[in-house]
Amino acid sequence: MDYLYQRWAAHYLSAIVSGTLKVGERMPSLRELMRLHGISLSTALQLCRQLETDGYLEAKPRSGYFVRQRMRIKPVTEPRLEIDQAQYVGIHARVSDFIARGRQQAIQHNFSVARCSPDLYPGEALKNAAIRAIKQNPDLFVSAVPNKGHPAFRAVLAKRAMRMGVLMSPDEVLITHGCIEALNLALRAVAQPGDTIAVESPTFYGLLQVLESLGLRAIEIPTSPQTGISIEALELACQTYNNIKAVVVVPHLQNPLGSIMPEAHKDRLVALCEAQAIPLIEDDTYSELINDDIPLRALKARDQTGNVIYCASLHKILAPGMRLGWMSGGRWQARIEMLKYAQTRDNEAWSQIAAAEYMGSSAYDRHLRKLRSTLKTQRERTAEAIARYFPVGTRLNVPDGGLALWVELPEQLSSRRVFDAALRRGILIAPGLMFSNSNRFEHFIRINCGWPFSPDIDRALQSLGHLIHEISSLNTPHPA
Amino acid sequence: MDYLYQRWAAHYLSAIVSGTLKVGERMPSLRELMRLHGISLSTALQLCRQLETDGYLEAKPRSGYFVRQRMRIKPVTEPRLEIDQAQYVGIHARVSDFIARGRQQAIQHNFSVARCSPDLYPGEALKNAAIRAIKQNPDLFVSAVPNKGHPAFRAVLAKRAMRMGVLMSPDEVLITHGCIEALNLALRAVAQPGDTIAVESPTFYGLLQVLESLGLRAIEIPTSPQTGISIEALELACQTYNNIKAVVVVPHLQNPLGSIMPEAHKDRLVALCEAQAIPLIEDDTYSELINDDIPLRALKARDQTGNVIYCASLHKILAPGMRLGWMSGGRWQARIEMLKYAQTRDNEAWSQIAAAEYMGSSAYDRHLRKLRSTLKTQRERTAEAIARYFPVGTRLNVPDGGLALWVELPEQLSSRRVFDAALRRGILIAPGLMFSNSNRFEHFIRINCGWPFSPDIDRALQSLGHLIHEISSLNTPHPA
Repeated sequence: MDYLYQRWAAHYLSAIVSGTLKVGERMPSLRELMRLHGISLSTALQLCRQLETDGYLEAKPRSGYFVRQRMRIKPVTEPRLEIDQAQYVGIHARVSDFIARGRQQAIQHNFSVARCSPDLYPGEALKNAAIRAIKQNPDLFVSAVPNKGHPAFRAVLAKRAMRMGVLMSPDEVLITHGCIEALNLALRAVAQPGDTIAVESPTFYGLLQVLESLGLRAIEIPTSPQTGISIEALELACQTYNNIKAVVVVPHLQNPLGSIMPEAHKDRLVALCEAQAIPLIEDDTYSELINDDIPLRALKARDQTGNVIYCASLHKILAPGMRLGWMSGGRWQARIEMLKYAQTRDNEAWSQIAAAEYMGSSAYDRHLRKLRSTLKTQRERTAEAIARYFPVGTRLNVPDGGLALWVELPEQLSSRRVFDAALRRGILIAPGLMFSNSNRFEHFIRINCGWPFSPDIDRALQSLGHLIHEISSLNTPHPA
Repeated sequence: MDYLYQRWAAHYLSAIVSGTLKVGERMPSLRELMRLHGISLSTALQLCRQLETDGYLEAKPRSGYFVRQRMRIKPVTEPRLEIDQAQYVGIHARVSDFIARGRQQAIQHNFSVARCSPDLYPGEALKNAAIRAIKQNPDLFVSAVPNKGHPAFRAVLAKRAMRMGVLMSPDEVLITHGCIEALNLALRAVAQPGDTIAVESPTFYGLLQVLESLGLRAIEIPTSPQTGISIEALELACQTYNNIKAVVVVPHLQNPLGSIMPEAHKDRLVALCEAQAIPLIEDDTYSELINDDIPLRALKARDQTGNVIYCASLHKILAPGMRLGWMSGGRWQARIEMLKYAQTRDNEAWSQIAAAEYMGSSAYDRHLRKLRSTLKTQRERTAEAIARYFPVGTRLNVPDGGLALWVELPEQLSSRRVFDAALRRGILIAPGLMFSNSNRFEHFIRINCGWPFSPDIDRALQSLGHLIHEISSLNTPHPA
């Protein structure tokens, strides 16, 4: 619906974006807006608030609305269409080194995680739901746990899956210990040690570590920060290698890129895997964090033959402390259920009951809307600080959701050196080396935006920018 | 301390055991006992109650104490010292079949599980501990979970391990999703698909299923119902096969045999595995269910070099609904921690905090003593019913603890036929075929004693005995 305030907000947005209204310039006052455009006070206020929410204006008390510094930074480079050989993953040693060194130091600012502050989640409501769960089910801890998951939780998940175009019955939903267990089970169901799995490049090191622990080889497929995994490259890989046993992708808010796969792209991906008879494993951990209230359709929504294994969890969107994930395994469901039973039996019931109650209430969608909005602000503030403090030549995209930024440093810079220098100042970042078997992303870093932006965080990013400048100038040859 | 009533109880016990006092015969009345032996009323009463508790007398209201039918049944046959070839495990199909058929029928009596009635566990206390845990840690569900386990829980487990002669620091305790995850991790740490693992024979099918799911081969080592795994046979196996990558044993209240490994036997086992450089995986799920208040020393207590991987859980002893297990991996600890992290990350904190609080209180040992006593009674009543109702030639041991009986039927009987016939009458038993890759235990069944004995259970066992008689007489050729 096209409200009046939205039309005027769009008008002023153009002015800001085109530079007609400059950064730091004061917006017309509310009274002036009313007079200039013949609108009500309410409309004038709504238009300013919308632009403020979207990050274009900032309100200064008793002064008015001012145009904010917007990030004027180039997007991350598209990847080259080249594919390494498939190789066994050696990520654990590499990552352990970074993690171990991170623990030896006192850390003031941890930008390396992909998490949110606990305050962003409805802790009080979940606590109360959990207490109700025990009181209503007093034998919870001394009774056998429900097989494959608690019925109420499976039902809620099946219902919410409909919003993503996925039609699954509660009986097809298997509850797991987080999405990581779901990925383990999916891979164990379709592949044996020595097999090759196609993954996005870059990808989150948790996935690479799973591959390593299962003795699987990874073939890294170039992935666009805009559109996700390259279908052409994947097709090429399938032709080149005949033992690709699965493809694992994060179509929505890919970690670390933040890309959201366009709908046509998803169609092509599902069709390709179907044609190649290669199982497609979908990690949908982040989709509820996409800005748009309208959920996008999952890969699983296109699955006609059970070739897509859908995995997700509550870890980032609701309850990192509950360790609740789920999956629907398509034609491998029976095997996956057997492996789950053999590996960890069934999940305990109490957290499922509490989560089911909360997720079935209207509070859940309200929480998600608020979380998206909060993360949006935090991402934008972080991006602006990076634009302000990092050297010229730094590139980044601001994703349409999620809790991290993937930052491309000027190419000659080593994120390992940045990691070391930052560590000495009590700042932890996630160096690009952690997101691939290769060194292709050595000049990238991932910065967490999960905590509310603050002067402290601003100073830390300033510090980070400063040390990157130092390293950069050390790299640059001095003029004779 | 030698109380007067105990001396007289021993006196009457001899009379009963020798048959001087016959089954069904009435004990002297309290007044007669006082007069005969010059003892007080209190002493007379205590002596009768002691014999009643030990199962030799039953009190009939307003009649007095009567000598009970005691099981007069031969112990289970010792195994022959023969070793099959190592083979891939095919237990899942076999067991699934039994499980699936069990689900298709309405079941009145389920003797097939190895579980206790929820009433045998302190549900109320655990519930309250859990509520306290949330109230004291309101951010539990929205905060990152503690790495490797909650400190309080790890500390309690390390402390209680001391009672079994095991010295481990809390830092060496890794919390898992039940003992089954611990076994998975232990096997993944020391073996690769295609490797051979030595297991007891018979053993619980859960273990066989883990082996199958990991692509491991099992070599089944004859196991005595009295002394546990045969050291001679294990030695022979080690000499015959050079790719045995681990030995998995349940030294205390082995499932299904109920054997308790003598101390000298444990010494030999640990020494043998050490000498052969074969990791020894100890499943200690049941040791707290041993009758004796004095805990026996674990295999791990003898571990000098980190060759023993200790695994246990709260599943049978305290809280089947909590899914809490733990392990200490000896020299494989780092690899096990890595595999755990890659497989399921860390366990949620809530149940750990509640369990730690309860287990650190005096209520826990009181609970265990009561549980042992209750199970003892239930085992003995079940054993008596079996002795009364099953055909001559039936053999069983009554273990010194635990919640099941391993019953050897006359050799020509097929437990599969017994399973089928029982199922038709709404009774589920666990046929011996589920406890081995071989058919060696086809004429065995396992009977659960986890529920309080009742007239209903007595009738079900009578029904079971009856149908076994029928099958038996069908087998026996009729005289011409």
